[in-house]
Amino acid sequence: MVKKTKFHAAILIIGNEILSGRTQDTNTSTLAIWLNSLGVKVVEVRVIPDIEQTIIDTVNLLRTNYDYVFTTGGIGPTHDDITAQSISKAFGLKYEINQVAFKILKEYYKHSEFNEGRQKMTKMPEKANLILNPTSGAPGFYVENVFCLPGVPSILKSMIGGLKNKIVGGEPILSQTISLRTVESEIATSLTKIQNDNQDVEIGSYPFFQAGKLGVSIVMRSENQSKIDICNSQILKFVNEKKIEIVDR
Amino acid sequence: MVKKTKFHAAILIIGNEILSGRTQDTNTSTLAIWLNSLGVKVVEVRVIPDIEQTIIDTVNLLRTNYDYVFTTGGIGPTHDDITAQSISKAFGLKYEINQVAFKILKEYYKHSEFNEGRQKMTKMPEKANLILNPTSGAPGFYVENVFCLPGVPSILKSMIGGLKNKIVGGEPILSQTISLRTVESEIATSLTKIQNDNQDVEIGSYPFFQAGKLGVSIVMRSENQSKIDICNSQILKFVNEKKIEIVDR
Repeated sequence: MVKKTKFHAAILIIGNEILSGRTQDTNTSTLAIWLNSLGVKVVEVRVIPDIEQTIIDTVNLLRTNYDYVFTTGGIGPTHDDITAQSISKAFGLKYEINQVAFKILKEYYKHSEFNEGRQKMTKMPEKANLILNPTSGAPGFYVENVFCLPGVPSILKSMIGGLKNKIVGGEPILSQTISLRTVESEIATSLTKIQNDNQDVEIGSYPFFQAGKLGVSIVMRSENQSKIDICNSQILKFVNEKKIEIVDR
Repeated sequence: MVKKTKFHAAILIIGNEILSGRTQDTNTSTLAIWLNSLGVKVVEVRVIPDIEQTIIDTVNLLRTNYDYVFTTGGIGPTHDDITAQSISKAFGLKYEINQVAFKILKEYYKHSEFNEGRQKMTKMPEKANLILNPTSGAPGFYVENVFCLPGVPSILKSMIGGLKNKIVGGEPILSQTISLRTVESEIATSLTKIQNDNQDVEIGSYPFFQAGKLGVSIVMRSENQSKIDICNSQILKFVNEKKIEIVDR
């Protein structure tokens, strides 16, 4: 049996506030960088509204297509938080109070009222595994390969550390950047040649505008540092030949 | 015949840099706010890699499902810019030099070399309509209901103004926010009741943390201001009863 070496994830952002433009998603970047370090590549992101059937259908598609699915948003106490009930339906599981989560939140709210909204946050698919929340008490959860996290970026960030041992990945995906004082159209032909000669390195080219000056960042990504090194030396060769200024590397 | 009143769009973000976490997408928010003002609601966003077949399949799915599709990214001069050729294949159209775009860019680069990379930016689906670019010359384009814009946020922003007359929408989607000094779990039950009583207003509840204090923003969205007003007065009623401080409205 060939050992699996490539692990792919999808991120599913559940929230009308992203689709309306009110809020800019930052969780994708947080999750992607963290997953890359664990050897998991994010290959698709979807943003969908707070509509139960859409959540169910999308989760069921993505969890079949990818090794991991990470959802963000919709696990709070209000009427528009319907992720936990939708995930239960997606898996055909009961949506019920998780006794461990109930104990955690009862303790968390011991000096105030453990009201209906707060108790709602203990309801999730039966036998779901908890993802502990060191920031605001209410845990996330996972069922099989679907991990459900909150939408608030600071809370999400505080929770993913505890998940590290639950994620099996491959080699970490390494990235190296070289930033040049040039424009893309000056280096496009050289870069194309280098990409063709280095198929195992994903080369990206991204224009930037900083301190009043244009530049281009070339990003090389691979699980293999020596392949990045070869690619990098080829880039430095043409940069040198064309007398392009290196801004940062 | 009933006049169409609801117009839906999808945004397709094409770019490995978003999936790797290197870059945070901000174009979704720009496009969504602009589209709302034209009476078009964004109901799905997807982020996909720079892979031709993935772009073709996703565009063909989305352009059938929605009134409008907006793509961002992949129309520059480098090897990883494959949006124009992929869209050509999605529509079964020739990928060829657009003579108007060629003339524009030849003029734009008259004081430097109009090289291969720059000429690549004039290639697009045959008979595509141009989207002019007041910032950096190279135009975007649209074919039927698929509008292709660049990934660089400042350039994208400068281009959408010129598209206004090409987008037919419904009534603008209005939004009103009231921010409270409370936590979601304190108001969840009242909000659920108000949402049930006001089905035509989409009510969202979003916690925030500002200047060291927690709060919740309640966002009401509808095409109908008077329905928002009714909803708003019901919210103010329970806010008043519960003696919750209003931070902003």
